[in-house]
Parts: sequence; C-alpha cells; structure tokens
Amino acid sequence: MDKPLKFPSELRFDLVSKDWVVIATGRAKRPETFRKEKRYDEEISEAACPFCKIETQEKPVLVFAEGKKAALTDGIPASWTTVVIPNKYPAFLPSFELNTRIEGNLYQTMNAVGFHEVVVTRDHRKSLALLSLERVKEVFNVYQERYLQLMDENFVNYISIFHNHGKEAGASIFHPHSQIITTPLIDSDLKKSLANAQRYFRENKKCVYCAMDEWEIQSKVRVIFENDEFLAVCPFASKTAFEVIVSPKQHLPYFEKITEKEKWLLAEAFQVALKKLYTGLNDPAYNFYLHTAPCDGKNYNFYHWHWTILPKTATQAGFEMGTQMEISTIEPEQAAEFLRKR
Amino acid sequence: MDKPLKFPSELRFDLVSKDWVVIATGRAKRPETFRKEKRYDEEISEAACPFCKIETQEKPVLVFAEGKKAALTDGIPASWTTVVIPNKYPAFLPSFELNTRIEGNLYQTMNAVGFHEVVVTRDHRKSLALLSLERVKEVFNVYQERYLQLMDENFVNYISIFHNHGKEAGASIFHPHSQIITTPLIDSDLKKSLANAQRYFRENKKCVYCAMDEWEIQSKVRVIFENDEFLAVCPFASKTAFEVIVSPKQHLPYFEKITEKEKWLLAEAFQVALKKLYTGLNDPAYNFYLHTAPCDGKNYNFYHWHWTILPKTATQAGFEMGTQMEISTIEPEQAAEFLRKR
Repeated sequence: MDKPLKFPSELRFDLVSKDWVVIATGRAKRPETFRKEKRYDEEISEAACPFCKIETQEKPVLVFAEGKKAALTDGIPASWTTVVIPNKYPAFLPSFELNTRIEGNLYQTMNAVGFHEVVVTRDHRKSLALLSLERVKEVFNVYQERYLQLMDENFVNYISIFHNHGKEAGASIFHPHSQIITTPLIDSDLKKSLANAQRYFRENKKCVYCAMDEWEIQSKVRVIFENDEFLAVCPFASKTAFEVIVSPKQHLPYFEKITEKEKWLLAEAFQVALKKLYTGLNDPAYNFYLHTAPCDGKNYNFYHWHWTILPKTATQAGFEMGTQMEISTIEPEQAAEFLRKR
Repeated sequence: MDKPLKFPSELRFDLVSKDWVVIATGRAKRPETFRKEKRYDEEISEAACPFCKIETQEKPVLVFAEGKKAALTDGIPASWTTVVIPNKYPAFLPSFELNTRIEGNLYQTMNAVGFHEVVVTRDHRKSLALLSLERVKEVFNVYQERYLQLMDENFVNYISIFHNHGKEAGASIFHPHSQIITTPLIDSDLKKSLANAQRYFRENKKCVYCAMDEWEIQSKVRVIFENDEFLAVCPFASKTAFEVIVSPKQHLPYFEKITEKEKWLLAEAFQVALKKLYTGLNDPAYNFYLHTAPCDGKNYNFYHWHWTILPKTATQAGFEMGTQMEISTIEPEQAAEFLRKR
C-alpha cells in the first residue's frame, strides 16, 4: 500500500520559544538545490516575466481594471490593472482538517492550512512609489476585498498582507507584487504584542498607538508626513534604519472596515512615504506588512491597525538572532529629518 | 556652553512588543550613506585586511599563541593564533551609568552600556570548518576566558557570543572573526524562552533540552553527529533550512563552567557540523550564537546551554516579519539525512 500523501506544508511548535515555524516542503526543494550559488535572478525582461503573461497563469480570484472590479467569468480582461492569483508555490494550502499530531510525546505539528495569494499590479517596472495614486488606492481596495472574503473561510484566524520589494528583501520575482497569507493560528510573539496593547488600553483607558501618535504630532521630530487621516513616522524604537509606520490618526482596530475616503488618504500617505524612501535611498529594497486585529472572532477593539515599512539597509546577524534585539545605525529623528526633505 | 556629549549608542524600549532595540549611532553613518549602492566589500586580500595587520590595531585584551595564553605586556607576539580586541565600531560601550530616561512621559531610553569585542583567528582564509581541531578548541578557550572576565563587570547581565560568516550573514570583514557583546538587560523574547524552559522544568521535573535530546538520540532521524558528550541535530522546529544545534548531552546550564575535556569534544562536534555544512552546501554563509544562562546573578539551574548554527540559504521577508513565524523550505529530517552523509 502506498504511504498516505503527506500534506505539503507543516506548522511545527518550538517547545522553548513557543513559536510556530512553517516547514513549507510543498516548495519541494531537494537538499542539493540549497548549495551556495547565484540564487537570485537579476531583473528579468517583460518577455520572460510570468506576471506580464498573467493570462496564462492559474485562474484569478480577483481582477480590477482601472479602479473597477471585473467579472471573473471570462478570465483576465486585456484592460486589467491589478490581479489576484493563488500562489504557485504556496506555504499555506486549503484543507478540511488541521490534523494536529504529536511526535515522541513531545513535539506538536499541524498542517499549514490556509490561503496564499499574490497581488500583481500591471506595470513590470513601476513599484508602488511610481504608480499613479489611483493604482495605489486600487491596491488597497484589493487588499480589503480579499481580506473580507478570506476572513470568513475555515481555519482563517489571522491574515497577513505583505510586500517584498527587491531581492535583498526576499522578492524572488522582479515584477511588483504583494502577497496575502492566512494562518490558522497567531504566533506567540504577535499574541504578546496584542496582549501588551490590551493591557495598555486597560491601564491607561487609551490605545497605545493613539498615545504614541499624539506625542509624535506634538513633538514633530519623527513625523515625515501627515494628512487629515493618516500619519507617517519613523518610530521611536525603530527596528531598522529608516523604518516608517503609517497609521490612521483615528482609533481604528479593523483594517477591513476602511472607508473609501480613508483608502484615498492612506494611499496618499503610504505613497509619499515610499517616494521619500525611493528618492532618499535610491530605490532601496524593502518589506512592508499590515498589522491589524486578528479575525478569530475575539474582540480587538483595543487594537489600532498600521502598516510597517522596513527598508533593507543592513543584514540581520548573529547578535540580533541570539539576543533578539535589533540594531539600527541611525537615530529615527535623524532619519525623519532626512526623509522630510525628500 | 556646549551641549553635553551624547552617549553614542542607545537602547530604546518598544511599548507594544516590549522589546528593546539598539540605536548604535556611534557607528556614525550620515543618512546619505544608506543610499543603495554596492555595500559589501568582496573578499579582500591579506595585504588590505585589518585583521592580518592586527598588531597595528588597538591593544588586545587577550592573546593566545598555539593553545597557550600569552602575556599582554608586550603587545601581540608574532606567534599569535587567536586574539581578542575591542570592536572599533562598538554597538555597546563601557560607562559608569545607564542614564535611564523618559521622553514624553511615554518612551524609555538608556545608554547601551557594555563591552563589544572581536575574536580573530590568524588565518585569513580558513574559517572554523577548515582550521585544525586545536585552533577550534582554542577559540572555545577564548570564549570562556572572556566570558569569565566580562561577567564580573558592572551592567553585564547577558553575554552574547556570535559569529557571522559570509556577507549574506552580515559579516562586514572577510577575515574570520567572532564577536562578544555584553548587554545590561535581557530582551523580552529571550526572557520568555528562559521562563518557558523554567516552567517545563518545574512541571516535568526535567530540562526541556534534555527531554528533546533524549528523544533525538532515540529516534535518530535528526541527529547528524554525536560523541561522548555532545550532540548535533537539525532541530524539529528548525527556523531555517539546515539549522544545526550543538548541545551537551549532560544537563549543563552555565557555558562558562565548561571543562577542558568538554571543550575538546565540543570543538569536535561543532567542527564536524560546520564541515558538513561546508561540504554539503558549498561553504554557505552562516551565523552561529551561544544561548546560555544569563550572568545577572539569578539561578538558572533549569537551563541548558547550546550553540545554534543558522546557514543563510534564504532571506527573511514580509511574512516572517509581519507574523513572526519563520519559513523553512526543507524538512529537518531530510536536511539531517543529507548532512549525515557529508
């Protein structure tokens, strides 16, 4: 009899840190392929780019054309501007069961159940810093739409929306794209941050992000941009040089409830931040990601969603890994002064 | 009147994660220098290498020559084999006070007080995988000697010993070297792991690392090497592809108490692990670091020191940053099978 097919991606629990790791064997690399060689493709041309020929990809799950949602019935229309497709090499995959199991009365494993999607904008060369404001706002439309769809699926307790720009930031495909991954659980570090935010709210009758934003607006030294609804700052305890956080000035726990007006103003503040980094640091590699209230059905009214942009200007090394303290080599106040002028 | 001189490196507290970050402005980069350009030096020749001309560096704090400690009175002797010097661009610096302060009734800062040293082995090209066993054992001698000296200094509550090999792992100088940094505090993530290990000990009357090691020896699938005293395994919940943990089979909480015999056997197990990675992955970049009981005077008899080796075969990206879950793309069992044969 054949061995039952193994689920191609697993979550494993670390007994000491109590963190979960993802063993994404569905990405199916043989050990030999890890040998040190040239690992990244340099910028590839449009002709060879899978996202420029997206019509030949798997079926889309969402298509926008010039700001309007398109019907999915006929595949991807020629006028597409933003498309969401399933990731071809998913780290999380849909399933009817988590199949939690124990090894040696010690180690815990479950299937990495979830959805892994890719959000592609049309232009091969223009990153979000260079697109029109309409296209950036459309990307936030797409994030929200997919969030609202995915949050009702089984085993979806957290939704991570993120973007890797440049090979130093882990992007394996040059063409600009974001990713959406749903996870069946919330990792202990993230849980800890949520618990800390909740405790602050209880003890101070105020959201910790609102408290920080108020002080930032008052002291000004770390603000790089603001409009009526959003604030972009280099945070006091920056994890990397030129870290930028974009957050709503109002206390908003749930990103998926963002309004049309807020999406326009978020697109503006977000793009200004990316443009300043683009100009000031010469198109650096970066990652950005959303932190928002989990969708596991609990009450997170104490939380305050925000986007974190982390330019890749240094490599995490042994000290950071061993002590879990990050090192940044520029003061956030100095970084903010530099970015304000860009 | 002149402004008082600012301490060149700061620790800042993140209100939400409750992690401390290091703002190492003493490394004194102007914002312009972060612009994306070729940031790393390729392998430089011996002639241009600062560590090959180490006699012209600052005074050494420890010198070994052919396995024997040398007197410091006459500088660095021609026969040196391993030398410890202060880091020229320290992230932590000695001081008589922490100078804890609050900004805006909200943000906490203190001086990054501590010691930052560099451990240099003589050969410009031979990494630890390629040195003689005597030289590898000498490196562990040096780690222990410096640990024992530094742990008695003021504001030294944790000592991080780590090594960055290759530019992808954050090494800025090609010549093989390790670093030792002392910190005045223990970060919350590390504290959490210590607390989890303590809870496991209390609840199970057994060390969590001993429990894992026993199961690994019994099940064999993740072991890559063992001798009388040490075990090298690809851990069940590997954070990266080909992660290796080298730990004593006996329950030993305090690395600094390692005996001569244990140092020889640790050097053997450690070097076998590095050689297997060197051969199997073609001299990959890697980081390694020590986790051991803090030296803050508390009782850590429940802990179990170990070295973690993390080959750099992938780049941390937005998902890992946003969810704090690591992704590895090979099963540890498969990685171990591959390394056992190397």
